[in-house]
Amino acid sequence: MTILASAEALRAKKVSSLELTNDALERIARDNQRLNAFITVDAETARARASAMDAELSHGIDRGPLHGIPFAHKDLVYTKGIRTTGGSRIFAGFVPDHDADIAIHLNNAGAVLVGKTNLHEFAYGITSTNPHFGAVRNPWDTERIPGGSSGGSGAAVAAGMLPLATGTDTGGSIRIPASFCGVTGLKPTFGLISKRGVMPLGWTMDHMGPITKTVRDAAVSFHAMAGLATGYVPPQSADIRGLRIGLPVNYYFDKLDLEVAESVRAAVQTAAALGARIIDVKVPDVDALNVIGRVLLLAEATSVHREHLLHRRTEIGADVRTLLDQGRLIRGSDYVDAQRLRRIYIREFSKLWSGVDCIFTPATPTPAPKIGEMTMKVGGADEDVRLATTRLMRAINVLGIPALSIPCGFTKSGLPIGLQILGAPRAEDMILRVGAAIEDATGVVGRRP
Amino acid sequence: MTILASAEALRAKKVSSLELTNDALERIARDNQRLNAFITVDAETARARASAMDAELSHGIDRGPLHGIPFAHKDLVYTKGIRTTGGSRIFAGFVPDHDADIAIHLNNAGAVLVGKTNLHEFAYGITSTNPHFGAVRNPWDTERIPGGSSGGSGAAVAAGMLPLATGTDTGGSIRIPASFCGVTGLKPTFGLISKRGVMPLGWTMDHMGPITKTVRDAAVSFHAMAGLATGYVPPQSADIRGLRIGLPVNYYFDKLDLEVAESVRAAVQTAAALGARIIDVKVPDVDALNVIGRVLLLAEATSVHREHLLHRRTEIGADVRTLLDQGRLIRGSDYVDAQRLRRIYIREFSKLWSGVDCIFTPATPTPAPKIGEMTMKVGGADEDVRLATTRLMRAINVLGIPALSIPCGFTKSGLPIGLQILGAPRAEDMILRVGAAIEDATGVVGRRP
Repeated sequence: MTILASAEALRAKKVSSLELTNDALERIARDNQRLNAFITVDAETARARASAMDAELSHGIDRGPLHGIPFAHKDLVYTKGIRTTGGSRIFAGFVPDHDADIAIHLNNAGAVLVGKTNLHEFAYGITSTNPHFGAVRNPWDTERIPGGSSGGSGAAVAAGMLPLATGTDTGGSIRIPASFCGVTGLKPTFGLISKRGVMPLGWTMDHMGPITKTVRDAAVSFHAMAGLATGYVPPQSADIRGLRIGLPVNYYFDKLDLEVAESVRAAVQTAAALGARIIDVKVPDVDALNVIGRVLLLAEATSVHREHLLHRRTEIGADVRTLLDQGRLIRGSDYVDAQRLRRIYIREFSKLWSGVDCIFTPATPTPAPKIGEMTMKVGGADEDVRLATTRLMRAINVLGIPALSIPCGFTKSGLPIGLQILGAPRAEDMILRVGAAIEDATGVVGRRP
Repeated sequence: MTILASAEALRAKKVSSLELTNDALERIARDNQRLNAFITVDAETARARASAMDAELSHGIDRGPLHGIPFAHKDLVYTKGIRTTGGSRIFAGFVPDHDADIAIHLNNAGAVLVGKTNLHEFAYGITSTNPHFGAVRNPWDTERIPGGSSGGSGAAVAAGMLPLATGTDTGGSIRIPASFCGVTGLKPTFGLISKRGVMPLGWTMDHMGPITKTVRDAAVSFHAMAGLATGYVPPQSADIRGLRIGLPVNYYFDKLDLEVAESVRAAVQTAAALGARIIDVKVPDVDALNVIGRVLLLAEATSVHREHLLHRRTEIGADVRTLLDQGRLIRGSDYVDAQRLRRIYIREFSKLWSGVDCIFTPATPTPAPKIGEMTMKVGGADEDVRLATTRLMRAINVLGIPALSIPCGFTKSGLPIGLQILGAPRAEDMILRVGAAIEDATGVVGRRP
């Protein structure tokens, strides 16, 4: 059940928050051994909280659509009294003494925390093959990765354990699992959702956002997470007539799996059929933006984790340790160069918004690769899994603009394919409206693993 | 004559802009060989411009107090058609094809550009002992440095060549020459005056500001340079009764020349006599802020000048080249650390403003040292000239808060002593009011070299 359907059922007294929560806990109990989406489940606290939320509703206190809805936090989000590992052995026993802002906001909205989801160690990678807490598995094919770093959140929502899990996105970490798991992921405008109390990775590129089954659920969750309005309900009908949708002629469309290219093309045709205007656009050099993002992240992540790298290196997984070591090689003046170039590209990119309202791109160039694979075929060529998977994403973190990933189709072998919708700063509501229109038209969201 | 006195005389038709400009040109012709304050003087353009400004005034067009006032730009500021060297041999023949924003603003205010002032090469140093264009000399003692990097601007104003010269301040480069030359220097809030068209040095710490003889002239110039209002006239009386002036108990007051400490103490007593309340405050670790500032500047300056360092190294003076080489040793993760710490200190420091309205500190721990000196005595101990001279300044660039340097006394040997007044972000008008009150009360400004 989606957030909005559950919210309606709760108010019609067809279901209680406790029932929704017990249902979530049962699904987790049933499927988590297979999927490994959770690091921590706190059933007792969740049930107590659900009962309290039921009591509020029965007393006429209504906090809005998230009231009584079970959800999970990515285990990078500080939760008071509940351990927060960051997917790291170093923090395996760390119990924060305060909630992250985002946890406070979702508490205020009445949501019921059920547990903490598994992730790529320190959120520094895209496989979620965690060396300390085990590999997260993709519900559509458990031999495949769910994407990362918010892999547990993507898998939990895709498997129907919960209608909402939080994610963080530094170079695609919300949108990649959304794409690989066939769910919705929103990376809002940089800074719009508070990061206080969330373990950092890349200081100038970290974003918080929701992973949900549907686009309208993402809209509800986004407004609550940003502390904008806990009672926000998205419009029922998503009208995109006359909207100008940009289709970049230079966004690696030549380096995609054929089925991905076809699905995205079909989504564009769907949008056109709904009355949107499709406009070819040339975007500023995405290659350069990706390089800028990598330089910035290498330096910033090594700044965040230097003490761990120096004093607890053996407790860090090999892939993350390698990246942290690489970060020590980035010069300060290179970092400054990258920040200066970033400003130029942000200015360049912003000019696009006078010509189009949003931009469609593929989310990932392929469906989910297999667990353990370091290279994969992309449109016939061998490529590094991390580089290929972040290729359509990382630039967007450098720019700080909002981006939505929604499922837009499936491969013949039954794996989800993602569409990415980009908007101008603070244009979340607009790209969510476009996403909802595509979702309504394709019906892809109805398919389950 | 000050800007405000000249403005009055112009409107009373007691003097013309052309006369003021010719007077400035004569003083420059007479004294520049001795002081070396100018790299370029463009008499012809200045006279034409002055005549045009006279014509406007006679036709009733009045742009405000800077209308018809001769001034100079630090030779780091792009001036269309007039060469802009940055104090560097590399740019010795560089003629910009556009004006810097600040040049546009001062043009709009009707000011008459007379020339471009000498500076420390690339503004990267505090002596203004320029290896390509010669050492600038201090009008109070030509064996001494005027301070830097805006040394030519400080010397020109102190010598009475002009009532206004622009400066840039990355680690004290406006306030140090103001202190050593016995004039007024304002470093406004970070970002308040546009830096477009000004050669950068430290991207996140560069500030533009005025160097003038009096505080009220600085106020007039600041408002025009920021594009806030070309017609701003500061209040005649500067009332500071009831104002809370913070006196830091931990701002290196133990590492000052005795005469500097005495002069600053006298300024504090003057403020108290004028009705201000003096409040002891403890400021966040200035030592740490200075280290942060040095790490940031080393990386940023090397980013700015990397191409020069790699391909034109022999054309760069030894001291600047050494700093640029050092900048290559700063790691990206160290730079990021410094930026993160900076944010923490900015937050900490901002708490002070609930308890005090402004803060008094010495500007420099000593009067101007001799040209060629690498070390000097500070309160009896041997210290590096650059480190000692920037010690009370650099932290302020890291914080980005406004700071005013005004003369507050003289040593027995006749060298000026500077007082620094700090304020909260955008509190320029307030610290200028305090500065004007001190200036009115001490009469120090009346003394000439």
